[in-house]
Amino acid sequence: MLQIIVCGACGRMGKKVIDAVFQEKETKLIGAIEAPNHPSIGKVIKGIELTSNLERIIQKDAVIIEFTTPKASINHLNIAEKRGTPIVIGTTGFTEEEEAKIKESSLNIPILLSPNMSIGINLLFNLIGEITYLLGKDFDKEIIEFHHRHKKDAPSGTAKKFAQIIAEAEGKRLSEVGVYGRKGKIGERSKEEIGIHAVRGGTIVGEHKIIFAGNEEELEITHRAESRYIFAQGALFGAKFIAKQKNGFYTLRDALKVRREK
Amino acid sequence: MLQIIVCGACGRMGKKVIDAVFQEKETKLIGAIEAPNHPSIGKVIKGIELTSNLERIIQKDAVIIEFTTPKASINHLNIAEKRGTPIVIGTTGFTEEEEAKIKESSLNIPILLSPNMSIGINLLFNLIGEITYLLGKDFDKEIIEFHHRHKKDAPSGTAKKFAQIIAEAEGKRLSEVGVYGRKGKIGERSKEEIGIHAVRGGTIVGEHKIIFAGNEEELEITHRAESRYIFAQGALFGAKFIAKQKNGFYTLRDALKVRREK
Amino acid sequence: MLQIIVCGACGRMGKKVIDAVFQEKETKLIGAIEAPNHPSIGKVIKGIELTSNLERIIQKDAVIIEFTTPKASINHLNIAEKRGTPIVIGTTGFTEEEEAKIKESSLNIPILLSPNMSIGINLLFNLIGEITYLLGKDFDKEIIEFHHRHKKDAPSGTAKKFAQIIAEAEGKRLSEVGVYGRKGKIGERSKEEIGIHAVRGGTIVGEHKIIFAGNEEELEITHRAESRYIFAQGALFGAKFIAKQKNGFYTLRDALKVRREK
Amino acid sequence: MLQIIVCGACGRMGKKVIDAVFQEKETKLIGAIEAPNHPSIGKVIKGIELTSNLERIIQKDAVIIEFTTPKASINHLNIAEKRGTPIVIGTTGFTEEEEAKIKESSLNIPILLSPNMSIGINLLFNLIGEITYLLGKDFDKEIIEFHHRHKKDAPSGTAKKFAQIIAEAEGKRLSEVGVYGRKGKIGERSKEEIGIHAVRGGTIVGEHKIIFAGNEEELEITHRAESRYIFAQGALFGAKFIAKQKNGFYTLRDALKVRREK
Repeated sequence: MLQIIVCGACGRMGKKVIDAVFQEKETKLIGAIEAPNHPSIGKVIKGIELTSNLERIIQKDAVIIEFTTPKASINHLNIAEKRGTPIVIGTTGFTEEEEAKIKESSLNIPILLSPNMSIGINLLFNLIGEITYLLGKDFDKEIIEFHHRHKKDAPSGTAKKFAQIIAEAEGKRLSEVGVYGRKGKIGERSKEEIGIHAVRGGTIVGEHKIIFAGNEEELEITHRAESRYIFAQGALFGAKFIAKQKNGFYTLRDALKVRREK
Repeated sequence: MLQIIVCGACGRMGKKVIDAVFQEKETKLIGAIEAPNHPSIGKVIKGIELTSNLERIIQKDAVIIEFTTPKASINHLNIAEKRGTPIVIGTTGFTEEEEAKIKESSLNIPILLSPNMSIGINLLFNLIGEITYLLGKDFDKEIIEFHHRHKKDAPSGTAKKFAQIIAEAEGKRLSEVGVYGRKGKIGERSKEEIGIHAVRGGTIVGEHKIIFAGNEEELEITHRAESRYIFAQGALFGAKFIAKQKNGFYTLRDALKVRREK
Repeated sequence: MLQIIVCGACGRMGKKVIDAVFQEKETKLIGAIEAPNHPSIGKVIKGIELTSNLERIIQKDAVIIEFTTPKASINHLNIAEKRGTPIVIGTTGFTEEEEAKIKESSLNIPILLSPNMSIGINLLFNLIGEITYLLGKDFDKEIIEFHHRHKKDAPSGTAKKFAQIIAEAEGKRLSEVGVYGRKGKIGERSKEEIGIHAVRGGTIVGEHKIIFAGNEEELEITHRAESRYIFAQGALFGAKFIAKQKNGFYTLRDALKVRREK
Repeated sequence: MLQIIVCGACGRMGKKVIDAVFQEKETKLIGAIEAPNHPSIGKVIKGIELTSNLERIIQKDAVIIEFTTPKASINHLNIAEKRGTPIVIGTTGFTEEEEAKIKESSLNIPILLSPNMSIGINLLFNLIGEITYLLGKDFDKEIIEFHHRHKKDAPSGTAKKFAQIIAEAEGKRLSEVGVYGRKGKIGERSKEEIGIHAVRGGTIVGEHKIIFAGNEEELEITHRAESRYIFAQGALFGAKFIAKQKNGFYTLRDALKVRREK
């Protein structure tokens, strides 16, 4: 039975992680952490008292799952490092110094950091480069992503990551081959370019489509997220993976690779 | 049995129209026209002698189907007008004067002119405005079109037409609401905008997708062309329609509307 | 401001209807009804006291929205009929006698009854027959529906309804032309048959795809539900429609047709 | 420059292979073989005299590509074996004895045999098992295939192959877990079952869709063939691969695997 401590337990993602912990038979919630000024501090959540004192409840053989802020994450990381507890970090927006600090700490504990915690997406991160390489230059690559009307940036970070992976597999830089819209007399498509299209509308949670268009055939790979719950599931999958690893820095892609070599 | 004369009989579209005429039981080829300097003039095509002399073979109760050049089209139109023969024009690229001339001629004969002769696409031209109106402002509208790597302009004329129809149904101008790519910190999507995305790759003949993305539901309408043969079928469908019409100017959308009122 | 009374206010659908009422500016919740033995009776929900006594709170110029059980629905209907209050019924599973009773009551009040309350789906119910008719016999019709792994019947009622509409538009009976799976040496597809495929997996809320496959072109219409909230929105849309109607029996399809004639 | 001999040069596939040979810069047609009674024997096709005498024109450093009949294939194989010439066999319908004979001959020459010669499909054959394994038992697997109205068997051989690969990756037999249609009160979906749906309509060349439906996310992989030309391209790709191999029995999947290890 894997013991889990959730930091950011009342946040949008933290709540879902706790749900996921209770869904799984092999995992057990032993700690729920929130900021000291959080109104629910001291209340009992799913049988666990909400506290801001990670140090008091931390266990060496547990795994911490973190969805908070960069600053809080670094604090939690320091406590984990001292105690030797593995940590899964889903927080985003770290500075370069913070990232360097995380990598440094990974000499002393196992750390898993992934900006996108979906299992399906990380599986595709692992496969798309290989497919690009295998299909070769006769297949043109285009990416379409679909998100709700409130999303403020485009394209999505995940779509950019896919484009980067494709560009790298072909020995190119995304900055040279990315095309983000087409209008007017554009001429024939070049072999190198990667079209990246951001569709916005309604309440779509998130869909990514990678198209390989060849001579008389197309391969199309689509990932559709129904809810943010998948990120909680992925974080838990990462926790189970990291519980068995040596000290070091990991991503969810590593978790899926190891599974593969078995 | 409807008698058909094909102008541009050895062209890419003309050949397909002749195939379609032979596929259908209710139509019969009675004339095949090409330019005077065409190397095959005088040869027999599917039992019909290829000629450049439309005047000699034209029949009042036949229908002409035209896929040639603007200049040749106007010549054929003059002969059709003199003889009182209905004409289906699939040729594109007319000047404004030529278009005015065509409309004028339609006082004397039935003329059907459509830049896109696909039955499915024209059916959608008729429906999309209605759907836009019925679903109302809670549904965001986006268009994606897919074409082969050699297509030199973007978006496709058909995609632009769909966008125009949507904009009109909402009392907007496409020039104000069309968005042809998204990159960077774009902010939330406005209610009015219509995203139009041109995917290019491989040998895709032509696909158009119109998305209505609402609150917790999406409606997606996709038309996929497998080959240019559909334009020949549509032209023949137009010929059968126009054979029964009074003098006047028609498009394939009218042919589909009439069918509907029956 | 349209006043709304929700029966089944603590049920899965009732809760969503109340959410939708608060989302819309033009609607106001004035009553929340539950069964007499419901544990929350007497508590205040969104400013309204939960009660089992519809008679006490009913208003003539309000609209009732009902998602309960057939038996409770008929009780509520009787009260609505006595008071002259329009009612939207989303409850399913009525016996023939109960259905007859509902139709009878519609002589005295406006009643809207729809087993599927999605606006998108009802729009398609209105369009699919027309498209079938317009495209004609050269287009083969197939339906695919996707639902979560827990759904116990197949195909979905909505898929069957689409198939029925298509069959009727061609003057056939679904019982004669429906095909629910293909395996082995089946021979060529007949013109008449309608393939209906039920995909089951994961947590898919509900997707319906209607395919019109012609000669060298396909038209594909897809509706995707992200959550059951769309049924609440549709019920509210129905309430706004029915508030303005004469006594009679309506479905959501009528609500969408009226919108169209404007 | 790789020298190619095409057997069945006037057949539907043979013609396309010859087109593909001329499309590629690295390949050259040096022989075109047909049955002795073929009306075009002796005529010149693309600069090569059509003959029925493979023995006369065979070269050791060429590769034969075969799309004929089982009986003719075995004859050609015998000649290739005697001369030491590698052979790509796209013919289908071999008896068990003929298959045994082919395997035996592969001790003496490199032989590549694949019932489906599409590069995209064979790539997916290689990946689907891995994806099934990596995603694990929380993802339900369903397959949909789309083919034209004239196809007489269902599901397609390719769809069955995908289902087999998935079943094997889960340690099951397809005969136990394949579900070919759903109708009525079927109850909840079991974890093991693999739904396989055969859509038939219009002139669709061939589309295969493999769906992995998990908890709140779906992965969908689609391959679409626009024409049979892709099988010619795949055969040529196989020819270039096999020209560099030792004696042995190969499939197109091997050709794609080798590419991968580079």
